[in-house]
Formats: sequence, C-alpha cells, structure tokens
Amino acid sequence: MNIRKLEDLLKKVKSGKTTLDEAMAQLKSLPFEDLGYARVDHHRSLRKGFPEVIWGEGKSSGQILSIMKQLKGKGQNILITRLEEKKAKGIQKVFPKSKYYPRSKVLTYLTHPVKSEGKGTILVITAGTTDIPVAEEAEVTAQFMGNRVETLFDVGVAGIHRLLSERERLEAARVLVVVAGMEGALPSVVAGLVSKPVIAVPTSVGYGASFGGVAALLGMLNSCGSGVTVVNIDNGFGAGYAASQINALAAKP
Amino acid sequence: MNIRKLEDLLKKVKSGKTTLDEAMAQLKSLPFEDLGYARVDHHRSLRKGFPEVIWGEGKSSGQILSIMKQLKGKGQNILITRLEEKKAKGIQKVFPKSKYYPRSKVLTYLTHPVKSEGKGTILVITAGTTDIPVAEEAEVTAQFMGNRVETLFDVGVAGIHRLLSERERLEAARVLVVVAGMEGALPSVVAGLVSKPVIAVPTSVGYGASFGGVAALLGMLNSCGSGVTVVNIDNGFGAGYAASQINALAAKP
Amino acid sequence: MNIRKLEDLLKKVKSGKTTLDEAMAQLKSLPFEDLGYARVDHHRSLRKGFPEVIWGEGKSSGQILSIMKQLKGKGQNILITRLEEKKAKGIQKVFPKSKYYPRSKVLTYLTHPVKSEGKGTILVITAGTTDIPVAEEAEVTAQFMGNRVETLFDVGVAGIHRLLSERERLEAARVLVVVAGMEGALPSVVAGLVSKPVIAVPTSVGYGASFGGVAALLGMLNSCGSGVTVVNIDNGFGAGYAASQINALAAKP
Amino acid sequence: MNIRKLEDLLKKVKSGKTTLDEAMAQLKSLPFEDLGYARVDHHRSLRKGFPEVIWGEGKSSGQILSIMKQLKGKGQNILITRLEEKKAKGIQKVFPKSKYYPRSKVLTYLTHPVKSEGKGTILVITAGTTDIPVAEEAEVTAQFMGNRVETLFDVGVAGIHRLLSERERLEAARVLVVVAGMEGALPSVVAGLVSKPVIAVPTSVGYGASFGGVAALLGMLNSCGSGVTVVNIDNGFGAGYAASQINALAAKP
Amino acid sequence: MNIRKLEDLLKKVKSGKTTLDEAMAQLKSLPFEDLGYARVDHHRSLRKGFPEVIWGEGKSSGQILSIMKQLKGKGQNILITRLEEKKAKGIQKVFPKSKYYPRSKVLTYLTHPVKSEGKGTILVITAGTTDIPVAEEAEVTAQFMGNRVETLFDVGVAGIHRLLSERERLEAARVLVVVAGMEGALPSVVAGLVSKPVIAVPTSVGYGASFGGVAALLGMLNSCGSGVTVVNIDNGFGAGYAASQINALAAKP
Amino acid sequence: MNIRKLEDLLKKVKSGKTTLDEAMAQLKSLPFEDLGYARVDHHRSLRKGFPEVIWGEGKSSGQILSIMKQLKGKGQNILITRLEEKKAKGIQKVFPKSKYYPRSKVLTYLTHPVKSEGKGTILVITAGTTDIPVAEEAEVTAQFMGNRVETLFDVGVAGIHRLLSERERLEAARVLVVVAGMEGALPSVVAGLVSKPVIAVPTSVGYGASFGGVAALLGMLNSCGSGVTVVNIDNGFGAGYAASQINALAAKP
Amino acid sequence: MNIRKLEDLLKKVKSGKTTLDEAMAQLKSLPFEDLGYARVDHHRSLRKGFPEVIWGEGKSSGQILSIMKQLKGKGQNILITRLEEKKAKGIQKVFPKSKYYPRSKVLTYLTHPVKSEGKGTILVITAGTTDIPVAEEAEVTAQFMGNRVETLFDVGVAGIHRLLSERERLEAARVLVVVAGMEGALPSVVAGLVSKPVIAVPTSVGYGASFGGVAALLGMLNSCGSGVTVVNIDNGFGAGYAASQINALAAKP
Amino acid sequence: MNIRKLEDLLKKVKSGKTTLDEAMAQLKSLPFEDLGYARVDHHRSLRKGFPEVIWGEGKSSGQILSIMKQLKGKGQNILITRLEEKKAKGIQKVFPKSKYYPRSKVLTYLTHPVKSEGKGTILVITAGTTDIPVAEEAEVTAQFMGNRVETLFDVGVAGIHRLLSERERLEAARVLVVVAGMEGALPSVVAGLVSKPVIAVPTSVGYGASFGGVAALLGMLNSCGSGVTVVNIDNGFGAGYAASQINALAAKP
Repeated sequence: MNIRKLEDLLKKVKSGKTTLDEAMAQLKSLPFEDLGYARVDHHRSLRKGFPEVIWGEGKSSGQILSIMKQLKGKGQNILITRLEEKKAKGIQKVFPKSKYYPRSKVLTYLTHPVKSEGKGTILVITAGTTDIPVAEEAEVTAQFMGNRVETLFDVGVAGIHRLLSERERLEAARVLVVVAGMEGALPSVVAGLVSKPVIAVPTSVGYGASFGGVAALLGMLNSCGSGVTVVNIDNGFGAGYAASQINALAAKP
Repeated sequence: MNIRKLEDLLKKVKSGKTTLDEAMAQLKSLPFEDLGYARVDHHRSLRKGFPEVIWGEGKSSGQILSIMKQLKGKGQNILITRLEEKKAKGIQKVFPKSKYYPRSKVLTYLTHPVKSEGKGTILVITAGTTDIPVAEEAEVTAQFMGNRVETLFDVGVAGIHRLLSERERLEAARVLVVVAGMEGALPSVVAGLVSKPVIAVPTSVGYGASFGGVAALLGMLNSCGSGVTVVNIDNGFGAGYAASQINALAAKP
Repeated sequence: MNIRKLEDLLKKVKSGKTTLDEAMAQLKSLPFEDLGYARVDHHRSLRKGFPEVIWGEGKSSGQILSIMKQLKGKGQNILITRLEEKKAKGIQKVFPKSKYYPRSKVLTYLTHPVKSEGKGTILVITAGTTDIPVAEEAEVTAQFMGNRVETLFDVGVAGIHRLLSERERLEAARVLVVVAGMEGALPSVVAGLVSKPVIAVPTSVGYGASFGGVAALLGMLNSCGSGVTVVNIDNGFGAGYAASQINALAAKP
Repeated sequence: MNIRKLEDLLKKVKSGKTTLDEAMAQLKSLPFEDLGYARVDHHRSLRKGFPEVIWGEGKSSGQILSIMKQLKGKGQNILITRLEEKKAKGIQKVFPKSKYYPRSKVLTYLTHPVKSEGKGTILVITAGTTDIPVAEEAEVTAQFMGNRVETLFDVGVAGIHRLLSERERLEAARVLVVVAGMEGALPSVVAGLVSKPVIAVPTSVGYGASFGGVAALLGMLNSCGSGVTVVNIDNGFGAGYAASQINALAAKP
Repeated sequence: MNIRKLEDLLKKVKSGKTTLDEAMAQLKSLPFEDLGYARVDHHRSLRKGFPEVIWGEGKSSGQILSIMKQLKGKGQNILITRLEEKKAKGIQKVFPKSKYYPRSKVLTYLTHPVKSEGKGTILVITAGTTDIPVAEEAEVTAQFMGNRVETLFDVGVAGIHRLLSERERLEAARVLVVVAGMEGALPSVVAGLVSKPVIAVPTSVGYGASFGGVAALLGMLNSCGSGVTVVNIDNGFGAGYAASQINALAAKP
Repeated sequence: MNIRKLEDLLKKVKSGKTTLDEAMAQLKSLPFEDLGYARVDHHRSLRKGFPEVIWGEGKSSGQILSIMKQLKGKGQNILITRLEEKKAKGIQKVFPKSKYYPRSKVLTYLTHPVKSEGKGTILVITAGTTDIPVAEEAEVTAQFMGNRVETLFDVGVAGIHRLLSERERLEAARVLVVVAGMEGALPSVVAGLVSKPVIAVPTSVGYGASFGGVAALLGMLNSCGSGVTVVNIDNGFGAGYAASQINALAAKP
Repeated sequence: MNIRKLEDLLKKVKSGKTTLDEAMAQLKSLPFEDLGYARVDHHRSLRKGFPEVIWGEGKSSGQILSIMKQLKGKGQNILITRLEEKKAKGIQKVFPKSKYYPRSKVLTYLTHPVKSEGKGTILVITAGTTDIPVAEEAEVTAQFMGNRVETLFDVGVAGIHRLLSERERLEAARVLVVVAGMEGALPSVVAGLVSKPVIAVPTSVGYGASFGGVAALLGMLNSCGSGVTVVNIDNGFGAGYAASQINALAAKP
Repeated sequence: MNIRKLEDLLKKVKSGKTTLDEAMAQLKSLPFEDLGYARVDHHRSLRKGFPEVIWGEGKSSGQILSIMKQLKGKGQNILITRLEEKKAKGIQKVFPKSKYYPRSKVLTYLTHPVKSEGKGTILVITAGTTDIPVAEEAEVTAQFMGNRVETLFDVGVAGIHRLLSERERLEAARVLVVVAGMEGALPSVVAGLVSKPVIAVPTSVGYGASFGGVAALLGMLNSCGSGVTVVNIDNGFGAGYAASQINALAAKP
C-alpha cells in the first residue's frame, strides 16, 4: 500500500464511501513492510549525505559501474572496498576523478566534498608495517565518513618504547583503532594506556600457527585490557565504520 | 629514584654541590619506570571515583576480602565479577551493605553513591531469556560506572516482530549492547535498525554445534551489519565497560 | 498505536476533526510493529491448537510452572524439552496429569487431546541403542504435533542387513528422521533406499575423535545421499518439528 | 542368480529333478544382491523420468561426454553440477542444445521437456548478491526436477525491511531454500515468519573468521528458528534436491 | 519370509498348488533381508565361538544383565567394555564367575573356555604407565578372541633405550598394538624397527594442547613410519579386535 | 668402532697385548650405533628385494634421478609417489622403461620382475569415481610389493545394492582397502560384511564441511564397524603398504 | 648379552677356545640394547644427584609411595607434579618431611640438600594472580634443580607500567619464564625488553574464546618478540626444567 | 622533553629562575618515553654489532633496498628472511656482495665480518630432507649471529639407528635445534638422549591431517621429553635466534 492508496482510503472514509469498519480492516492488514520501506526512506533522509558502501569482492566491473552510476545520479559519495587493482583501473576510465588506494584496495568517488564535522580525532595504530593495508582501509573509511584521522604505524609490543614515546598522541585521540597480526597483543597495551574506546582489528599477517589471523583474533577477544571490542580479521572497513559511529556520537549534544 | 631523591638532586644543583653535567647524567638514566608510576598515579587521580574491578574467579574469599578492605579504605566503590554465591555470602557477612546479583554472579559495594553523569541511555538487549545472566553483568557494570541503563529481553530474531515493536526504544539509546547465544544473529538485525554503536556479546547458551558460544561469536564477527564490534563469549562485563567508555565520550564536549 | 486509537483517528477523519494531511502524517509514522504484533496474533490464531514449546534448560521450576499455568489458562497443550528429572518431579506434583519421558527428558501436558490429522507416517530410526534418547525427543515432539510416528531402533550400518530387512517400513514412511552418533553414516544409506525426505540428527554418542557429535555432524553434512538435510547435534526436537512441518504440508491440498 | 536360473530351479522342483531340501539349500544361499539389483531396477522404473545427476568436479570432459551419451541413449534428462566453464564449452560443442549457467556452473541437457507436476512453489532466497551462484544451483536443480521456482535475492538481515516487505511471497511458498554466507542469520528470521519447511544453505561468502562458510553453517545449525534443516556449505544442489522431494510429497494424496 | 514359509512355497510348487509364475513373483519380491538374515546366521555359525561384545556405556545394569542372560542361554562368551565399576559389581552378583578389570573397565564372562588357536603373539606396548588402561582393553579383547598376548609397558620415546633393549620381543611379535598419549610418537619408532603390522592407539593422556588425545591421534596419522594404521582415541577394544583379525588371518592357510 | 677395529681388538686380546679388563672397558662403551647400523644392514639383507620408496613431493628431478641411479646400481626396484607429471616426463627420458600412473602420480621402475608370493588377494574399494586416484596409489604400491590386487570402484553407500551385489568378491579378499571421501561411511559397511582386516583411507574428495578430508577421516575413526583401522587423508601408499604387511604375514607359516 | 657373558667370550678368545671369526660373529650381533642400557647407566651416573620426577596424575597413592620408597632407597631427591591434595596428605603421613605446595600441587622430598650451583637467577613472571599456580610449578621445579629463582607476579600488559618499573630485575635475570593466560601477550613485551632467553608458558586462565589456554598458546607461538620459545599449556614444570637446563649451561665453562 | 630542555631546566634551577617546586613538577611529568628512547639507544650500543633483521614477506624490493641502505650506512650487518628469489635477484644487483640462500629464502649482507665468539656449537637436526629449508633458516640465522653451527639432516625416528649412530655429535652440542614435520616426534627422542636445551621447530611438511604443520606443532608441545621448548611452524629464524641467545649466555661468565 503506497501513499496514494492510503490517501484514497482516507478520502473515502471522509466522504463516507468507505465505512469505518472497512477502513479498519484494510488498515489492520496494512502491509507494514511498505510503511517500513517509507520509514527507511525517511530514516535515510535523516542521514543524508552518508556515503553508500559497495563490497567490491565478487562483483564484476560492469555491476560496480552500474551501481556507481545510479548512486552518482542521486548525488551520493561512493566508497568501494576490496576492489582489485585491475577492476579499479577500468572504473577509473569511466570515473576519472575517483581515487584508488592500491595498498588497501579501496576506491572513493566524491560527488560533493566530505563534510568535516569538527569532531575529535580517530587514531589508527598498527603493530607492524605489514598491517598497514588493513589500517588504511579503516583510515580511508573514517575519512570518507567525515572524520579527522591520524595514523601511528609500526609500534608493536616487542619494542614497547616505540609505543610509549607516542603516549601523548594516544591520549589525544577520541577513538582508537588498533590493527595487529601475529599475537595481536597491541590493543591490550593501548587499552591500558588510555581511557578511550579501543577497536581492535586482527590481521591475517603472520604464518604457521597464526592461522590466517585467528591467533590475533583470539588474542584480542581475550584481551586483559578492559573495554576492547573486536571486529573480524582484516576488517579495516568495519573498524573505521564503528569508530565513525562512536565519533559521530561524541559530536552530538 | 623516588620523589625525595629527585628533590635532593635539585637542591644539590641549586647549591652547586652537584654540577650540571652530573645532574644531567643522573637524570638521563632516571629510571622512567618510577616516573611512569608517578604518571599512572597522576592519571589515576584524574579518573578519581572510577570503580575498581575484581575478577572473582580463582580468588579465595580471604583474598577478596583483603582487597575489598584496602579499596574501602581508599573510599572507592567496588565491583566484583564472576563471584560464586557461596563466596558472596561470606563477603556479605563482612560487608553487609554490599549487593549481590545471583543471576550474573556480580557483587557491588558502594562507599559513596555512583555519580550519574547525565549522559544518554545504554540499552542492553537479549535474544532469549537464558542470555539474561550475561546481560545483567553488562547492566550492573554500566550502572556501576554511572550510566543510565535500560533492558529489552527475549527479542530474538525467530520472532522478529518482538524486536520491531520496540524500535523506538532502540532508536532512543545512545549505545546498544546486544547479547545472544545460539546463532548470534540479533546484533546484525539491530545494527540494521539503528545508527548507533552496537556491541555484540556472544553467550555460551546453546548445545551441540554451538560449541560453548563459538557459533554465536563467529556469527557476530561475520555480521553483515556495519559497525558491530564484538567482545569475548559471556563477557558481559567487557561490553558494559566498553559501552560506558563510549557513553562517557558522548557526554564530553 | 492500538486498535482503539486507529478507530479514533478514522472517526476524526470522517468527522473532519482531523484533516487528511494530518491523518496521513500520523499513519505514515504508524508504528508498524504494533500492526506487526496484530498480524502475529492473527497468524497465531490461524495456527490455533499448535502447541507451545518451552526449552527447559536453564529455567527454574518456578519459572516453568508460571509459564505452564499461563499456557494452561489459554487452553494450550504444552511441550517442555531438556527438563531434568528432578524438576519434572516437582512439576508433576502441580500438574499430575503431565507425562514425563525420562530417557529424552521431555514433559508433555495436554489440556485437550492432540488432533490427529490423518497424514502419513513419520519414521524415526536410530543407528544404535544409545541414540534412542534423542530419537525419543523427535518422536514425542512429532506425536505432540499430531503426527503418526513409528520407530526403528538399532539398525546401524555395521550390520546392514538389519536395515535392509526393514525396507518395507522405510518405503512406507512419508518423512524419515535418522538419528546416529559415531560416524553418522546411517542417513546416507537410508537416503539411498527411499525417495522421501530424510532429516539427519547427529548425536553426541561416541568417544575420542567423535568430538561430542562433530564427527557424526560432518558425516551427515557431507552425505553422498541426495536430499539429506541436517539439524544440530542431539536436536531431536528440531528434527521432529521439521518432520511435522513437512508432513503437515503433505496433508494439505 | 538371475531370473532364468531361478525359473530353472523352480521347474526342477516341480518336476522332482531337484528335491525340496536341495532347493531350500540353494535358495538359502541365494545371492540376495542379485535380487537386490532386480529390486533396484524395479524401483528405478517406478521413478522413471527422474533425472540423472553428474558431479562435474574431478571428471574429464571425455568422461562426462561418455556418461552423457549413455544417458541420452536411455532418453534421460541430464543435470551436471560443478562444471567449469572450459569443460562446459567443450560439451556444448557435442551437445549444442545443452544449456550452461556460468554463475552456478550447472549444465542441463533435456531429451524431453521437464514435466511440470502442478505442485506449489519453491522459493529460493539469498542474503546477499554474492550468494546468488549457490542459489542458482538450487534453482536450476529444482526446476530440472519439475518444480515451479521463484527467487528473492539480497534480502539479508542487516536491512530487515527488505525481507519484511516480501512477506506475502514468503507465505505463498510451499518450501523455502534460504542461502546466506557471513553470519548465516537469514534462515532463522525467515523461519520465524513462515510455517513452511525452511532448508538453509550456508555459503563460503565472507572473509576472515567466516572460515569459508563455517560461521554461516554453525549459525544455521544453531538456528533459534524451529524447523530449520541445513545442508553442506555451498550445496545448492542438495537444497534444491531436498526441496523437490518435499514438494513432490506435497503433491501426492 | 522365513524358512518354513519358503519350504511351504516349494512344496506348493512341487504339488502344483502354486504355478511357476506365482512362485517366481513371490520369490522375486522375496524380502532378501530375511535371507540376508539367514546368511548372517550361517555366517555366524562359521565364526562359532566368536564372542559377543557389549558396549557398556549408556546402558543400565538391567539392560546389560538382560542381554547377558540371552547370550549365556546361547552358550556364548561375553565381553563388556566401558563398564563402570559400580555396574560391574551389580553384574558380578548375578554372574559371580565373571571377571572384571577395573583399570580398563572391561568385564568378561565365559560360558566355555576361550579356544587358543595356536597363532603368533600380539604384543601390546605403551609409552607411559598412564596409557595402561587403554592397553589393557586391547589386551583383554585380544585374549578373549583367542590370541596369545604379551605386553611391554612404559617404553616411551623420551628414553629410547628402554624400547631398544626389548627389540627381540618386538621382532618376535606377529602384530603390534602401540598405545601412546601426549605426542604419540612411539608407533613411528616401533614401525621403523619391525616389519610387522603396527596398530596405533592414541590415548587421551596429557593436558593442555594434547586436546584429549588429538595431538597423539594426529601424530599417529602423520607417522613417518610406513604401515602404521590408527584407531580412535582410547579405542583399545578396536585395536585388540583388529589385531585379532590380522592374527587370525595369519593362522589360516 | 668399525669391523676392522673390532677385529684388531680381538687379536690383541688373543695375543695378550690387551688385557681382558681393557677389552671389557672398550667393548662396554662400544658405540652401539655402529653395530646398530650393522644390524640394520643385516636386517635389510633379510628383506632383500624389498622395494625402496621415494616421496616425490618437494624433491627436484635432479635429486630424484640421483637417488634412482644409486638404487638401480644396487639392483633394486623403485617406487616414487606424489610425482608431478612434469617431473615424471623428465625422469622417463632417463629411465624410459619406468612406468608412470598419471592419475595417482606414481612412478615405478623395475630392475627385476616383482616376485609374486602366492598370497591372498588385496581388494581396493572406492566409494566414488573421484576417489580412484588415491585407490590407485594403494593398488600400485601393493602390486609393487608383490601382492595380487583387485579393485572395486564406485560402490558408495548411497546405493548400497552396488556394494551388496559384490559380496562374494568382498568375502574372497584377504585384506580390504576401502577408500572414501565425503562422509567416509563405506568402511563401516564393508567391515560389517566381512571378517577380514579393513584399512580405511579417507580422501580429500568433497567440498564445504568436508574440510579437505577431515569429515571422512573422523567418520572412519568413529566407525561402528569393529576392526577398522585408518591411515592419513589421501594416503593410498600407506594403506597399500600396511595391506602388504598383513598379506605377507598371512603367507607365512 | 650381559657383562659376564662378554667376559666369558673374551676369555675364550684369549684361550683360543673361540676363534676370532666366531667371536666377531657373536659380537656383531651383540644386542646393543644391553650395552645401550649400560651406556645409560653410565650416563645417569654423570648426572648423579639429579632429581627424579614423578607425574602424579593418574597414579594411585600406593603406586606413588612405592616409587618414592625405591628412590629414597637410592638416596635421590624426589619431585612429584600434578598431585591432588588428598593424595599428598596420604603421602605426607608416610614421608612427614616432604613438602607440599597446594597451589601448584607439587610435592618435594629431599634425601639430601639441593646443591646450589652458583649460577645466575631464573626470573618467573606472571601476567595475573590467577597464573600463579602454574608459575609456582616452574619455580619449585627450578629450585629443586638447584637454581636461584625469583618471582614477579601480576605485571600484565594492560598496566604496562607495572612491568616497566621492574626493568632492572628483568635485566638482571639470566633466564626468564613468563606465564600468562588470556591473550598471552606478556612474553612478547618482556622479550622486547631483555636480551636473555624467554620461555613462555600459556595458562588455561580465561573463559570463552580463550579455549582453555589455546588463545594464549597461539599468542605466544606468534610472538613478534624474537627468541621466545613456548611450552605446553599450564606446563610450569616443563618451563622450569628447560630454564634449568639453560641456566646449567650458563654455569659451565 | 629533549636533552637541551633538560639542561635549560637545570640551569634555571641553579640560577634560581625556577623554584625547586616548579622543577619537581616539570620533572614529574617528564615524558619518560623520550628517556626511554635514550635508554634504548644506550641499550643498543651495548649490543653493538648485533645484526638487524628484516622480514622480507610483504615488503617491496624498493622498501627493502631503502632499509638496507640505511643500515649499511650505520655499518650494520643485515639479515633478510622470507625473501622471494625474484626480489633477491633485484637486491643483489644493488648489493652484489650480498649472499642469497634460495632453499631458505634468506639473504645476508655483511658490512663487516661476523665476530665468532668462541662459544659452543649449535646443532641443527632435521627429520627429513624436506625439512631442510626451515633448518637452513635457523642455521644461517645462528651463523649470522656469530655462532658455530653444525647440521645433521634426515635422521627421523622411523629409522632410529640413523639418529643413534650420531649420538656423539648430539652430546657435543651446546644447544640443539630439531626441525621436523609430519608427527614431529624427533625432538622428544633427541631430548631423551641429551641433557642440553632442545628447541623444536615444527614444519609444514606433510599432507592430509598434518594440517600444514599443526600435527607436528602439537606433537612437540606435548613432547614427553623434558625441557623441549617450541617455536612457531616453519619458524627457523626464531629457533636460530633463541639458540643464539642461549649460546651467548653460555659464553659469559
């Protein structure tokens, strides 16, 4: 039942063409899903300007281009994750202003500038240099969602002084995204140094009994540092998204 | 090097008994750990009034009582998690004003009232009734840390209307803690309905291939709902703590 | 928004007290969840007579009795699964007409006779005698839901003649529930002998590398017998329920 | 012992050439497997017209072509699953009327039209677009077995309104095949909305702790939705086959 | 169809009361399973004197006693495995001549002496003293099946000389059962020293990352010693049974 | 201490140049490993004619050719397993009489005919056609070790009549190697039909929750068929070797 | 062949009763295992004073007492690990001078004072207080083997200053045993601070996805700190033993 | 706060421009991390000449070359592990004196000769020939760190005499690195033969249930040989590093 039909019904009630009982019956069985849809649209408009995100894995260039054109038509900014370089190049031919980050395999296309909302800083930290691609996915995601993002790379726990010497930056951040592979110990240490929310991202960096990131994931889930929450292995996007939600919250009265 | 020694050194510099070079040498090798300690103390004082938390598992009643007396002496509020009923009863004989929550096995003892800080609401949701003990651990923790907490129990995805009929409460919350066992699907659905941070807590509720909560944990880590972060299985405390950190952030300028 | 409020609104539209636009606005934001609830209620009434099921694990006798009284008040039949014998005895004191099955830990209480709906037979098969408790859970569930149920126990694949000698009963069934622990091979063999739906139930019977039913579960998921579907380890209830749904389907035009 | 030999034996009994005792001895050791074969042949003839299915993985084009020719000779319809595109092209040169579905890697070849048997509808649902290849395997299988099949794609639980807005189609189906990767939550929600059999198919879509579909598989096995049964990861064929068996059952008196 | 009915049929064929065609029809649909049964009986008689084995776990004393009486009535020897001491004592009251082995939880009852069949020796070896219960299960099983069994305990690989000093006994055995927990390395070493069949039995002895015998099981499956075959964790019975089958083979022409 | 030194010592004892005590001391610390080596050589000579086996994986063509030349020089027959086709072709240029089995990736080179030792038959059975490569590895290994080998392919449990119709061949074998992927149920059924040793070989055939053969492996380890022993996944060689050891045993008095 | 027989042989060589060739033949087949035994005895005597260790788990009090008496008779010091308190009390009645450590379940009995060998210090560190029982097992083991042992408890990474403030003690140690549960991150941090061997001991402390110590174990195996080696979960004894071996090495020229 | 600022502060104290209290306050909040850095530098200088190690995996040739130039400028020796041959060749063009080990994928570049420090020997042992690449990584690492290294390859436990015949070399070593795949049993046997520290390295050699080295890893963690410590799968570098630390310790007074 769409808006027009609803209006018709009410008119008929008013004019007496439809009895109250009949109207009640029709409204009772009103397919809420349509109203649900309406609610969602309304909801969406509240969030206006929020980027659409496309998961590039398993989609053809053609499929992605088609979605991008549709979104561009609506004037939306676009973020594509897990996009292989080869596909990205094809897309950049059609959308030459799009920006591709080969390390993190992320592509962004802006129809309008990202609105910086004057919130605090999200700090993205990595234990090693090989964790940087995942960190960059978080960084680009958070920037795309309007956050000020800083990074602090290669401060793993085996050389704890590297981390400690950056304590002021740690304390200055509002939300911290901590990316680590191998034993995934860095979030525990960071959480012990700050009182802000820490989102831990395990990476598949490592070999042997790291089991593609499971060791780091378990390390983070069992963190002795209070307040650490965890996302999936290599899920930089999810961490950037969650950090943005928290930072957005911080900005509101 | 403690404070007195440092003061002595500076006095000697002032009086000329120690040359600048000698003082520099001594200060360069200054055991930072002591200063580190000092920093921590200072840091702690900033957080003053923040509760101390004791993990009750594997500690004897004697050990716990001894820690409690020490903390009470410092005028601190006390939260003990994973405390078996039997031990709790012993403790309540010594601390008759302490409050014990048998479902969640949490005990609190207040030396002063918890300062409510006027922030938003943390909403703790469960999929089933058997998830309530873990949810209560989150609830009590967050209340103990000064948050307003509401609960919404038994709204699992197999009867999705139960959840949908509470959408207004979902949207009114600032942070959501979603507790579920079995397939752990509830956080995904909740995250699709709200734009606030969702902290997912897998529980060990279930049998067979639930593997003590692993099925729920994996479900939550692989959530298709953006922005979901996860804590360890049955870790209601961790979720309550993280939610408090986020809510505290929200309250600050 | 409940029914009365909706009626009021329509009356006001009719009387002109509320303009069309105002009514539209109110209806657009109509909390569908309430209507959703209504739908569910309506839906429920369609299924009238369908039993309510209580998962006994993790509920106290008091909680269970309270739910039972409520359901009895509505004139519903009651099925409780995973109910420890001790609790069952307490319940039987209050509900002396309830029937308890100690092997499968199931309790049923009938406020009215189960309506046999004249459908085909559900055949519950086990590989060994130690699988019988799980099989009985399936059997009692399916009977409680109005099905004719037969059983065939201890016909595991290591003595294949035991199974083959019962081929006529296999072929006569409309739905087959096959319960097996250890290597869980029986469903594959049964599925090769009949063309009816086979629901496989792995049990935690076995030791060592059976891993509490995982070996049987994997065996069934990898069944070379086409058309085998699987439920959770020891989930006799789920199998009985699914078999009932299929059998109910069979009975309808 | 084939039919002729059995006839000979009986003739000899009749004529007295073989004593009763001798005949008894021969019949007692009668190789049942031969009769078994006969039974099976008879059984097969009952199912006449049922398609033969070839698992394409690990078979060479030559092997497959040889089996196809044999089946074509018998006038049977042919379904090949898991067939790489390269092999499919080779086969289509020999069987130009065969149809290949590259997404699902299924090939069908019809020697006679599929007999539509006037049953209800099988509805194949996916959580995301990347689950479609597996869904298509189920769809093609069920169509090939004579069912009316509808599809409903990309209605995952993170946007629950997408699913709810299709409730009427959900309720109209006789059997539902629900295909989902990641956390695999969709079958639980669907099972809560309908009272028909739901067959859940986990897919290997996802990354990190999805473990190639294990997270989805566990989610489905632990479904809080009653009546959900599960097939192997990515096993669209198995789900389509089981759904057909159930639907066939529904059609019979 | 049992023997008498078959005889009747043949008589009727002979007498002409039943035509050949009628008899053919009846015999074609002859439930081979009954003949199958017959075959099994015949088969069994070939193995006469072979013990019946009862898995004691999950059976009540009453159930076990009832089976034992039936078997005793047939004059069979009886072996019960995994029988808790408490049940064993109850059984010994009824069967005072039965022998119970508390370490391995095995009970035997002989209605007639075990026939020693003059074959070679089965040697049961353990790595440690805590592996002895499993080894004893193998030992008693093999003795019960008529084999000469020797044992060699506590010769684990960490003190390799203990094993090497017994090389003559190793070489004298016809079949070797090697029982080990922890890393399960002993079968590899033994297989390198002899050219006879080696059956490896992992035990659940160990702690931590032994995972209840999984470490030993994997060690044995990956044995670099050619010709090692493996049974389930703690499955002394299976090893004793398999060793007996091999030794029985050795004895035959 | 080599043979010459030992001879010298004994000469000196004889001639009195070395006292008894001195000789005793030298002999007591005699490096047994050298004698051990000698024992092994002696032992080897007992097994003379036994083939040498080379694991082809991870060795270069050059390394393999060098080992082959050495073995050929000693007049030994050679078996190479896990040899990629490309390497095999290179080897066949140098050893044109060698025989390569591309399905099982085995190469044999005979310097002298394999001595058939007149023992019983080893029967190699597979559940499906895709299991044949592993079965062939077992077959070639056993033939190479002088056994008469028969094969029975594609008799999986989903069409149990295929297996039952071959019961005579099953019973005629002395040792059975049963190769199966997916749920790995075939060995259980075979073990229920025969009283001979059954060696089960899980294969990595399957997908999804077959986990590269783990499902089949667990199925076989948990076999309800007494006397089944198991080798590693895809380890056709190991099964062929173990079967040969058992069959060799059978041949001896 | 024992010593006497060897002496006889040499006498016969000397006297000419046995020819050189005959003696050579007998010596070549000399059962090295006996000499091997002799070697071991000799070897043992080199290590004289080294304690014997008994694994208490799965041994009865009677068995343990019997071994202890034997060892006492040889004048050896005795260490028993994993000894339940109840058994320990029984043993202390017979050996009143034995010392039992209830936290770590270790019992020691000294027939002579432990010889302190003047080496460096072994430092045993724990992350939390619940790791202390495992740490104590390492501590008592190392002391029993003659080492000077110090401890540093509850310095986990979530409060990194606790560890840093003890850097001088860390640097003063020769070998470090680091005991941690949960995420097991402490060894990485410690290894980054010192250049001495670090032995990491995962403990089963934790819950949920700590999987009884697996999370800590994986964390330690994947340590980014160079030079960390790992022992089994809760294996304090193994760590203490290995640390002793290293420290003993340090002490020797 | 850097050195100059510290000097300024002290000057001001001396001159009275800054009061003692003010200076105390500034020094108390002294950012220890800077001093920490200084400590580390100092610490580093103590270890002067110690090689820098680069993990080659996941770094581009450009990145590696840039780090190498920096290190060369400081006069340091360089070790790169996990370096693909292709990258190595590019590096050797710029650093023609660098040495690449293609088996172990290690590259070394010496700006000055490695200082041999006259310690004992590290013995690197492998079970099979396919374990040699990992062993070589350990060997090159240890040599690069100034140790005398010997190797003993292909002495796996299935031919135990190969190991025993080298007992003298085993006993002569100060530290032993034992590398093994498959069941990983070799370290247990070696640890039983020597009293020196044994570092076990599991390799990913094997197939099927070896699970990429997990079987060997578990075997080693559960070693019955006292004093065995373990590193990650294929982590030859870690073992070489740990062995060097131990051997370095041995060399000091």
